[in-house]
Amino acid sequence: MKYSNTLFKTSKGSKEYDSKNATYLVRGGFVSQVMSGVYAYLPLGLRVIRNIETIVRDEMDKIGEEMQMPALAPKETWQTTNRLNTVDVLMKTSPANEVSKAKNSSEYILNPTHEDVTTSIVKQYGNSYKNLPIALYQIQTKFRNEPRAKSGLLRMREFRMKDLYSFHASKEDFEQYYEESKKYYMNVMKRVGIGNYTYLALASGGDFTENFSHEFQVRLETGEDWLFHVESTGVTYNREVAPSKAPEFEGNAEESERKLEDVYGEEITGMEELVKFLDVPAQKCVKTLIYKADDRVIVAAVRGDYDVNEIKLKKVVGAKQLELADEATVKEVTGAEIGYAGIINLPDSVELYLDDSIEPMRNFECGTNKTNYHTINVNWGRDIDKPEQFYDIKLAKEGDIHPESGEVYELFKSSEAGNIFPLETKFTSAFKYEVVDEAGKSKPIYMGSYGIGISRMMGIIAELFNDENGVIWPISVAPYHMQLITLDKDEQILKKAEAAYDELIGAGLQVLWDDREDASPGVKFADADLIGNPIRVVISKRSLENGGAEVKQRREDSSEVVALDKLLGRLQEIKKNLESELTAE
Amino acid sequence: MKYSNTLFKTSKGSKEYDSKNATYLVRGGFVSQVMSGVYAYLPLGLRVIRNIETIVRDEMDKIGEEMQMPALAPKETWQTTNRLNTVDVLMKTSPANEVSKAKNSSEYILNPTHEDVTTSIVKQYGNSYKNLPIALYQIQTKFRNEPRAKSGLLRMREFRMKDLYSFHASKEDFEQYYEESKKYYMNVMKRVGIGNYTYLALASGGDFTENFSHEFQVRLETGEDWLFHVESTGVTYNREVAPSKAPEFEGNAEESERKLEDVYGEEITGMEELVKFLDVPAQKCVKTLIYKADDRVIVAAVRGDYDVNEIKLKKVVGAKQLELADEATVKEVTGAEIGYAGIINLPDSVELYLDDSIEPMRNFECGTNKTNYHTINVNWGRDIDKPEQFYDIKLAKEGDIHPESGEVYELFKSSEAGNIFPLETKFTSAFKYEVVDEAGKSKPIYMGSYGIGISRMMGIIAELFNDENGVIWPISVAPYHMQLITLDKDEQILKKAEAAYDELIGAGLQVLWDDREDASPGVKFADADLIGNPIRVVISKRSLENGGAEVKQRREDSSEVVALDKLLGRLQEIKKNLESELTAE
Repeated sequence: MKYSNTLFKTSKGSKEYDSKNATYLVRGGFVSQVMSGVYAYLPLGLRVIRNIETIVRDEMDKIGEEMQMPALAPKETWQTTNRLNTVDVLMKTSPANEVSKAKNSSEYILNPTHEDVTTSIVKQYGNSYKNLPIALYQIQTKFRNEPRAKSGLLRMREFRMKDLYSFHASKEDFEQYYEESKKYYMNVMKRVGIGNYTYLALASGGDFTENFSHEFQVRLETGEDWLFHVESTGVTYNREVAPSKAPEFEGNAEESERKLEDVYGEEITGMEELVKFLDVPAQKCVKTLIYKADDRVIVAAVRGDYDVNEIKLKKVVGAKQLELADEATVKEVTGAEIGYAGIINLPDSVELYLDDSIEPMRNFECGTNKTNYHTINVNWGRDIDKPEQFYDIKLAKEGDIHPESGEVYELFKSSEAGNIFPLETKFTSAFKYEVVDEAGKSKPIYMGSYGIGISRMMGIIAELFNDENGVIWPISVAPYHMQLITLDKDEQILKKAEAAYDELIGAGLQVLWDDREDASPGVKFADADLIGNPIRVVISKRSLENGGAEVKQRREDSSEVVALDKLLGRLQEIKKNLESELTAE
Repeated sequence: MKYSNTLFKTSKGSKEYDSKNATYLVRGGFVSQVMSGVYAYLPLGLRVIRNIETIVRDEMDKIGEEMQMPALAPKETWQTTNRLNTVDVLMKTSPANEVSKAKNSSEYILNPTHEDVTTSIVKQYGNSYKNLPIALYQIQTKFRNEPRAKSGLLRMREFRMKDLYSFHASKEDFEQYYEESKKYYMNVMKRVGIGNYTYLALASGGDFTENFSHEFQVRLETGEDWLFHVESTGVTYNREVAPSKAPEFEGNAEESERKLEDVYGEEITGMEELVKFLDVPAQKCVKTLIYKADDRVIVAAVRGDYDVNEIKLKKVVGAKQLELADEATVKEVTGAEIGYAGIINLPDSVELYLDDSIEPMRNFECGTNKTNYHTINVNWGRDIDKPEQFYDIKLAKEGDIHPESGEVYELFKSSEAGNIFPLETKFTSAFKYEVVDEAGKSKPIYMGSYGIGISRMMGIIAELFNDENGVIWPISVAPYHMQLITLDKDEQILKKAEAAYDELIGAGLQVLWDDREDASPGVKFADADLIGNPIRVVISKRSLENGGAEVKQRREDSSEVVALDKLLGRLQEIKKNLESELTAE
């Protein structure tokens, strides 16, 4: 490809976005923002997307069959799984104007994911045990009603995604497939160049399963997620499920029990205000919250410097639905306005769930369950019975200890490139999709879903591999293997360059030839860095005087001169080395 | 691919749809209907779509650069071209439920076509004459608010489409490119197998241009469009623009002028009622309609057996907007209720446009412009001045004559596989996208748009090539080149079949092997016909006894026996012959 032939050149002066990937991808001519969270893929960008999709397809073909679900679905499909009114990123379509409405006023769902549609289709075909297991995947454009589309390709309203769904006649069969899928997912991560940065993180299984789901998280300073990593075992948790033990707090080592006291603090609510007012650290306070757990009302408490992890709490209390209690309920339970709930003075009938960070506390504060009052110097045994059991219901934070190993977690930010999810029988039972076994008996079908964010992966790669001059693409996904630069108008030199170009592309190498006549050497070198193809080849008067072409890798500072008759061989060798780096164990 | 491995088998018993393509594609396991006008592409169907897309991409790469526009666009983009409230297939997105709305209540446009978005993007990159001409294309999922989605893949709400947009610094340059694009379009038609059935039809240029647009129409009995073809010149018109002369009507050869008479007919309106009431043929009546043409009111009339062609009328009167006048205007102009308008008794100030089918009429009927009255035995000269000019403003119909050649049109139905459209400066001027020429002067940019319906093409092919047993795919788009059938459980025979299968796919042939153990020979043969791969290969006890494999083309009745060691060569030969048929001039 001759660079002079493309409309979409670099635009180095274009604005700085909120993320490196957006800034560099726009400047390099890979994408163009149409609106917040919605991008066009320009020819260079589409090549990267395609390269990623080819790798994903190649690995997925080993464990599934490709098909293509529609983006539109009838509302009934989403009603079947009770998700029509609960999925908070769901969008629908409707006529855009009166003339359109006059012709057809129907509304449809714009699928953000395809568990529902896939199950409804598969049900029509696979009702015998002989048809199972089955795994289907697609690579498709998805739509999410993102409140805050941001960080370039990391969080979009419209994005490319690979989603796979598997159906199994038994839980064992499902679990085996689920386990095996991790290998092909890791293959993808390696082959696109992010294998060394990818952590298999345990995450919430949602309402679907008691088990964890698994995320393929890429360590990235600008990522949105927090990972909690146990170095000795290599186990990694998404923050939402990280088990945690609070590190010891020196303030618990106080000598003697002080006098219990109810402190009047008018309209002092919230931990921040409270610690200021009382002039104590948050670690000396107890944060108490009232929840509705299905039909029960429960009270949960964590140490003041923590937040309640509702995913953990939900499991501990064994509830399907969990939400903060409304004002009326809080008043009824505590007898006070919101903001004064505490773990003392509660009726015996209340279900109390205390986090283990509270257990070692002495002389601590908690709400009095009386408007405008906070109780201080509370002590176990003297002022309140110490419960037999404490729980881990806190949201893990920096410095926390992994309870099982006793190790302090290593913490880092990350971005999720993929995830796999045990859905168990949630969707199949909603669609009454069962399998008839060899004995003719109906049995539940176990299902999993397996996603990879294609466009997000492109964003992650750009965000991960760059320097101050632009992106440095892994060779497997780079728009071209190399950028050929010519600098002279001398016909003899250009002829040599053209011969080299023809030889390279004839041998299957992908070459972007910056042949522009109106661009200076400085512009061409800067553009080569900004576009970020992994190899740069210069054929110029000077390089020829030095003995051939100047070859330099994008990530290296030094270059080498290669005789033109050895150029193809040397470039193939560099390419091969770069490729084998990616798949090395 | 082993057929036993796919979930999506044929379903011969599935319901009959309103079109062959839908019926056969569903039964063959190519697509699954998710709702009216929305289909999932099952693995076999996706292979056909991919094959078509590969051919389209290959041809379009010769005249354009591929990119990918988003499906979503901000409303402002469509407002810029004043299309937000006028495009009757336009859909928008909005949050699907309250929790979604609480997070982001914005609405976006779901693009049914991308002139608007493309122009807005290209404007940011190509402002110099040096950047032009430029042509960009994409293959993408599109959305249309179809009132009556029907005929399987021929008219869908969600469909695959290739759309290309070209931008030019001069009208001449645009016209040259436009002309050249036809060649690559015809290449596509040929290569997918429908070249011999494709007519380049002249169609309306809409509001964009005085010129025709061009449609690639595939002759098809079940198509939605009517083509008017002039055999001697090979020129073909879409009905909407076919120039037409009415064939002579014998009733005009009446001997003498009869007496003019106003006939009372209470509430007799509309041609059907009228001819019954008067007991005359429609060819003896004049159909008169009142229009608003921009700010003017005009009267148009055609012979009673014709309808007014508003596209022709609009051009003749030189109006930008044309619509039937409202009741008040009709009353004002005619002095009568709607249904009694005629070409006599009109004030001189009225602009009258008469179709040339009226000119030879004698003793004809027309409305009296008086409620409940119709005038009969009207004659030119005696009762009404014969105007100097008649026009062609009728919708052409069967039996009509092509005025220039004097030939009676050949008529046939068709389905539109692609179209090319001269947009001239309509979109570029709306976006104020101009080019700076060499002299530094701003000049308008000329634009064209060029579409190919990918999924519709799949439907057309299925609709065109089939017999009572299923589809007969052209080899270029067939899901597989051939279907291998084995019938025995004998291990020795299966080993031979497996060796042949491995040899064929090793040589790059695409083979679907029906290896099912639980299907009878009858089922396998019927399924091979239903799936419609162009070559069938049977390796069975009997075929081996006969000397090898039985090879039969889907479209032929006779088969041949080929020795196993000659099988690959023979199949490659058949494949090559089938391929060269498609591209033969």
